Amino acid sequence: MNEECIFCKLVSEKNSDEFIYENENFFSIYDINPELKGHALVISKKHFQTIFDLPDELGRDLIDAIKKTGLKLMNKFNGGGFNVINNTNKVAGMIVNHFHIHILPRKKSDNAILKFIDKDTKEIVGLKK
Amino acid sequence: MNEECIFCKLVSEKNSDEFIYENENFFSIYDINPELKGHALVISKKHFQTIFDLPDELGRDLIDAIKKTGLKLMNKFNGGGFNVINNTNKVAGMIVNHFHIHILPRKKSDNAILKFIDKDTKEIVGLKK
Repeated sequence: MNEECIFCKLVSEKNSDEFIYENENFFSIYDINPELKGHALVISKKHFQTIFDLPDELGRDLIDAIKKTGLKLMNKFNGGGFNVINNTNKVAGMIVNHFHIHILPRKKSDNAILKFIDKDTKEIVGLKK
Repeated sequence: MNEECIFCKLVSEKNSDEFIYENENFFSIYDINPELKGHALVISKKHFQTIFDLPDELGRDLIDAIKKTGLKLMNKFNGGGFNVINNTNKVAGMIVNHFHIHILPRKKSDNAILKFIDKDTKEIVGLKK
């Protein structure tokens, strides 16, 4: 446990019934700054910084947690599917330095598409970058 | 193998030296329609439609393939990190119905941020949806 890590605090302070799903190595919870309705996070129970620190062996439980969380979100938010996003390092949008994956339930009525946009112009970033 | 699947064809027709990386269950290759420079895909060698069809046991090799591919992309494209994206079902942007993960190397100079935008207005989609 990293004493200064807000995700480590969730592991030690939250009860299991506050999680969307949990298994031995991961738990899921709603993002406090959701991008879309139902935006959730799958978080490792141990403190690993990025995917490079996560032992390959935990991949099994990670896939399980993504499937179970994704299914629950689809059922709860009338989703027909979902996006899974993981950001490695600050330059890729990683904010909390504790391994986590975003799961966002999707439905046709959201009329959305996931794109890289320029931070300043808000235009879709093309290959020139 | 699914005879009509373009990713299954890659498995049967490509040589290993055309892959960015491969292990027993996954291989990686550049996306033919890149969103950013260095946009690659990690694809399962067997035909699984979505993550729900992927056996949890393959999570170990999936994590290995993401780490090794991500590191190679960071080195080749001067990236300081990368994004990993997986889309489940058409509503979430899945186009080829064979399990795959997008890996996009990132650098500060791309000045980009990953956002859900409205298909019509191109504006960032908020929680109202």
